[in-house]
Amino acid sequence: MIKIAIIGGSGLTGKELMKILARHKGAEVTFVTSLEYPGVEITSIFPELRGLIKGSFLDAKDESVYSGVDLAFICLPHAAAMGFVNKYIQKGVKVIDLSADFRIKDPADYKKWYNKEHEYKELLKEAVYGLPELYRNKIKNTRVLANPGCYPTSILLGILPVMKKPGVESLIIDAKTSVSGAGITPTPVNHYLNVNENVIPYNVGRKHRHLGEIEDVIANEFGKVPGIIFTPQITPMQRGMLSVIYLKMKKWIEPEAASQLYTDFYRLEPFVRIVDKVGLHNVQNTNFCEICIDGVKESNTLIVMSAIDNLVKGASGQAVQNMNIMFGFDEKEALL
Amino acid sequence: MIKIAIIGGSGLTGKELMKILARHKGAEVTFVTSLEYPGVEITSIFPELRGLIKGSFLDAKDESVYSGVDLAFICLPHAAAMGFVNKYIQKGVKVIDLSADFRIKDPADYKKWYNKEHEYKELLKEAVYGLPELYRNKIKNTRVLANPGCYPTSILLGILPVMKKPGVESLIIDAKTSVSGAGITPTPVNHYLNVNENVIPYNVGRKHRHLGEIEDVIANEFGKVPGIIFTPQITPMQRGMLSVIYLKMKKWIEPEAASQLYTDFYRLEPFVRIVDKVGLHNVQNTNFCEICIDGVKESNTLIVMSAIDNLVKGASGQAVQNMNIMFGFDEKEALL
Amino acid sequence: MIKIAIIGGSGLTGKELMKILARHKGAEVTFVTSLEYPGVEITSIFPELRGLIKGSFLDAKDESVYSGVDLAFICLPHAAAMGFVNKYIQKGVKVIDLSADFRIKDPADYKKWYNKEHEYKELLKEAVYGLPELYRNKIKNTRVLANPGCYPTSILLGILPVMKKPGVESLIIDAKTSVSGAGITPTPVNHYLNVNENVIPYNVGRKHRHLGEIEDVIANEFGKVPGIIFTPQITPMQRGMLSVIYLKMKKWIEPEAASQLYTDFYRLEPFVRIVDKVGLHNVQNTNFCEICIDGVKESNTLIVMSAIDNLVKGASGQAVQNMNIMFGFDEKEALL
Amino acid sequence: MIKIAIIGGSGLTGKELMKILARHKGAEVTFVTSLEYPGVEITSIFPELRGLIKGSFLDAKDESVYSGVDLAFICLPHAAAMGFVNKYIQKGVKVIDLSADFRIKDPADYKKWYNKEHEYKELLKEAVYGLPELYRNKIKNTRVLANPGCYPTSILLGILPVMKKPGVESLIIDAKTSVSGAGITPTPVNHYLNVNENVIPYNVGRKHRHLGEIEDVIANEFGKVPGIIFTPQITPMQRGMLSVIYLKMKKWIEPEAASQLYTDFYRLEPFVRIVDKVGLHNVQNTNFCEICIDGVKESNTLIVMSAIDNLVKGASGQAVQNMNIMFGFDEKEALL
Repeated sequence: MIKIAIIGGSGLTGKELMKILARHKGAEVTFVTSLEYPGVEITSIFPELRGLIKGSFLDAKDESVYSGVDLAFICLPHAAAMGFVNKYIQKGVKVIDLSADFRIKDPADYKKWYNKEHEYKELLKEAVYGLPELYRNKIKNTRVLANPGCYPTSILLGILPVMKKPGVESLIIDAKTSVSGAGITPTPVNHYLNVNENVIPYNVGRKHRHLGEIEDVIANEFGKVPGIIFTPQITPMQRGMLSVIYLKMKKWIEPEAASQLYTDFYRLEPFVRIVDKVGLHNVQNTNFCEICIDGVKESNTLIVMSAIDNLVKGASGQAVQNMNIMFGFDEKEALL
Repeated sequence: MIKIAIIGGSGLTGKELMKILARHKGAEVTFVTSLEYPGVEITSIFPELRGLIKGSFLDAKDESVYSGVDLAFICLPHAAAMGFVNKYIQKGVKVIDLSADFRIKDPADYKKWYNKEHEYKELLKEAVYGLPELYRNKIKNTRVLANPGCYPTSILLGILPVMKKPGVESLIIDAKTSVSGAGITPTPVNHYLNVNENVIPYNVGRKHRHLGEIEDVIANEFGKVPGIIFTPQITPMQRGMLSVIYLKMKKWIEPEAASQLYTDFYRLEPFVRIVDKVGLHNVQNTNFCEICIDGVKESNTLIVMSAIDNLVKGASGQAVQNMNIMFGFDEKEALL
Repeated sequence: MIKIAIIGGSGLTGKELMKILARHKGAEVTFVTSLEYPGVEITSIFPELRGLIKGSFLDAKDESVYSGVDLAFICLPHAAAMGFVNKYIQKGVKVIDLSADFRIKDPADYKKWYNKEHEYKELLKEAVYGLPELYRNKIKNTRVLANPGCYPTSILLGILPVMKKPGVESLIIDAKTSVSGAGITPTPVNHYLNVNENVIPYNVGRKHRHLGEIEDVIANEFGKVPGIIFTPQITPMQRGMLSVIYLKMKKWIEPEAASQLYTDFYRLEPFVRIVDKVGLHNVQNTNFCEICIDGVKESNTLIVMSAIDNLVKGASGQAVQNMNIMFGFDEKEALL
Repeated sequence: MIKIAIIGGSGLTGKELMKILARHKGAEVTFVTSLEYPGVEITSIFPELRGLIKGSFLDAKDESVYSGVDLAFICLPHAAAMGFVNKYIQKGVKVIDLSADFRIKDPADYKKWYNKEHEYKELLKEAVYGLPELYRNKIKNTRVLANPGCYPTSILLGILPVMKKPGVESLIIDAKTSVSGAGITPTPVNHYLNVNENVIPYNVGRKHRHLGEIEDVIANEFGKVPGIIFTPQITPMQRGMLSVIYLKMKKWIEPEAASQLYTDFYRLEPFVRIVDKVGLHNVQNTNFCEICIDGVKESNTLIVMSAIDNLVKGASGQAVQNMNIMFGFDEKEALL
């Protein structure tokens, strides 16, 4: 039974982690910290966790939180996370960081997107980007795992099989997310009256920080990065994310052939399904990514629609999948 | 006071028409027919129209419906509409057809998209496509008006100002519509449990019939039709449509300059607004189209986001705007 | 043309007021103040008002806001409102107060419910409770009008016709409201993730402050106040309120007879409709109250379902209705 | 491993049953029939069940469906169900009937509410009403189990602890359900445009058939049935049901004392929780019933708010709970 710490556990990803880990046969949550609710009973903040978890949130300033565990999940905002990651590694505790701090390999790029100097460049080099479908072997042996963002997960899974061959010239990504992507803290954005009966584009073009990690992964894996346009949009839903990706191909491939290629590429993957019709109902509350492929030959463009639950495969579910790989559990444990 | 017939008035566009026309100072609804509810009081089917309209639905088979009116709005499905359009024209009554039957100039294209031989080719030649921002002068003098579809309205308004100059090489359109686009008749598609918490792409690529009229208008106005990809999607909303259009430009134009160009192009238009931030709340229940422009220079691509209410500017509101033009009313009458 | 000030106009009732008054033929908004946005253009906060209103929010601390107008609508929270009401009255300006400060006649009751000593007891005596269906004649001549709360409007309209005769022994009110009742400021309550897919009872039993004004009106009009239980609930909607009222009758009256009695009682009322089937779609965005009556003879209990739009008949629409009465306009002006 | 048949499995309760049973360690679904989709692969109708179930829907007319199983869940409409129940019992197969056919003990009452003569009166006598919190011991030994309706489950659990002592004089039940209560077949009721932004009372007063089983259980357990008023309402949600119950007490009991009484009454129950604050988020997708208690002493009335997921504790979850009891499994198996 491995022992787990969750740092910054009073947000949406922390809650989802506790829910998933409660079903896990080989791991148990030892403690959870919270900046906002130190000393407060966890289930008083998250009543739906009653029966699944006990105890109160701890204060992360307390030194005792750095020992007695095998793994720490860091659920803090970027910049706030990196110090904790480092400290846990110093103490010999493995880390899965759900923030963006260790996702971008190039510190200059990190600075460009997050407007902050990276303070642990050595650790950054060592960190593995936790997309199991791409880096399973590296994940097995790492002690620092950077859990991917929600958009990058849905997008990278939607393009990986054709990036090398037949190859992609450019990408236009039109992505729709749910309100849970906008966090648990009340703001004008996640106000019911803003979201209900609305579709709200934001960070249109090349402004969203998740572009940084998408392009970093592509550069590292495939060399040249195609031109990317990315338009995220908030839609009136509590969970789920659908990325519609238009891939201008270097060489045309019929959608049926592409579909077969994707099926082959992911044939051993427990959480990727190639489907004929796509929507969000089949992935919500699951760790699955469903991918549906269409295309327009005259435009030499494949249309890939990639659906995930932004809180599960896009965050806490994938984090547990990564934990399973790092600690030798069945990769599907607690996730089916 | 002009007298109006609404043919096929028991659907969503018929209801919306009655609502708008009730506010009109120069027009009155003389009768409304319905295939499903002949003899039934209109307000028993649409209680929200109480106080706005009186009387019962008539049977369109009754010959008396072809006389005593100055204008007929045809709210029937394609193929069913064309016979009524022809008959009214024979009787000397002007027609605004909300179906697709007279939108596509080329009968072969009509047949390709709607799988039906057009039976009134002469009338088709005469028909004017009712996008006031493009064809106001022709609309003034026509007796057969083809009211545009919802997607074409939002899309054409979103691209017109740059089609000629600087010119567009190709278009990718990712459009989100509300459930009212799926009609009033209960189907698995518009079931609450299908739509709620979902985003559902359909007719992906080049399968949606509205492509026919979009390309027909472009061909007639600008000659060469750029490659178009079009992905419509249903989202959990009752009204509203947001088309995000990616325009690969022949010549780069900065978004700010494009925004100015759009502002100039539409400066005399009463129902088009160029905005800095886009969503649906400012256009729902109005006849406005709001357009927001962004872009990515590296990709030589403008991103135009065009928002309308699919039942108003996308259907019945635009139909009344066209009526206002055809009959010399203030174009904004009943629409502000 | 009367001139209007709106004090505290950057909330939901202020926005709704501006929207309604823009259609008014005899009144114009001269200025609008805002605590949060002094100096900011109104339409930059409420873009949907473009074309309907011009200018920037003023600062209410500026003395100039107390002159040059015929009527001030006060859209401030309780306690904050009363000083403004007094000051306008001192300056000879009529006031419609949308806060709770002048709704409860008995200052002790005001203190009990709002935990604050009333500072203008003489003015309180003079104030008229603005339910036109009950106090139209008094409204005509008042200079201080207390605009009713949303729940009291839907509830009082639902019970008035039977209070005197046949008489009511006790009331159980189970009311469902929309999120707009929870205000424009982001809080955990109006967070999308709290409201979506939920029904949330609050202030259950006898805890909601609106009980104060309901009982005050009943006491003033009918003497003895029956026992009242009141359970407000938030439901996933942006507008609308449905109060289901169970009236234990002193003397049984068949629902059909009661329905006739209500129809007679409200026969001259422009904004009350007795209906056979009730829901919210027919009252949303209107100033109508729709009332549907059923009952259970064995339990000697009428069941009255009363539906309004909480922002219109439950707030700003009724405020304009009251203005119309106070200033001799057609009562329906700007409201149909 | 017990073998299970699901008869009429292509509706919402059938789908939910398959989902729950897929997690069950001691039971497996052997086959599922469907009137609409015989021969069609189950996961093509319910894609979210991929990985959880295999094979195609069978035709219930095929005689082979009556053998080779230990238990049949009947998910058919009332009247259609009773013949299947009887046939399975004749074949020695235990039955859990999710229809209303065996819930009401008195055949005259059954006829009154369902307008149909009961054809298996002996079997009806034998049937046990499957509310574990009330009839666990009888459930253990029955071969015919009548699974309770959704409203009766939430309501009976909300009143049982005080029915005998201190005793209840009358009940007013104001219940809000989700759209899944309106079934999978598209109708004007479950159309998105009907449900969205609406609250819709139906069968107001004493018209809903679930009253029959509520009163039957009360009569059998407590003798005299108090007067009951029941107002069901559809709200814009996909899952969940909140019954607000106003209990006029024979003898006053403070809400705190009542809360303690409920806590004691249900202290051994695995699926009932007494809570301080109620909503639907903590019960959706679970088999829990959460009950919150308040009250008004002056009116001698307790207010009990009882929340369940109408598809789980209100249908398929409770059916599996009953199966667990009938077959000696851990009662919580597959339900946590």
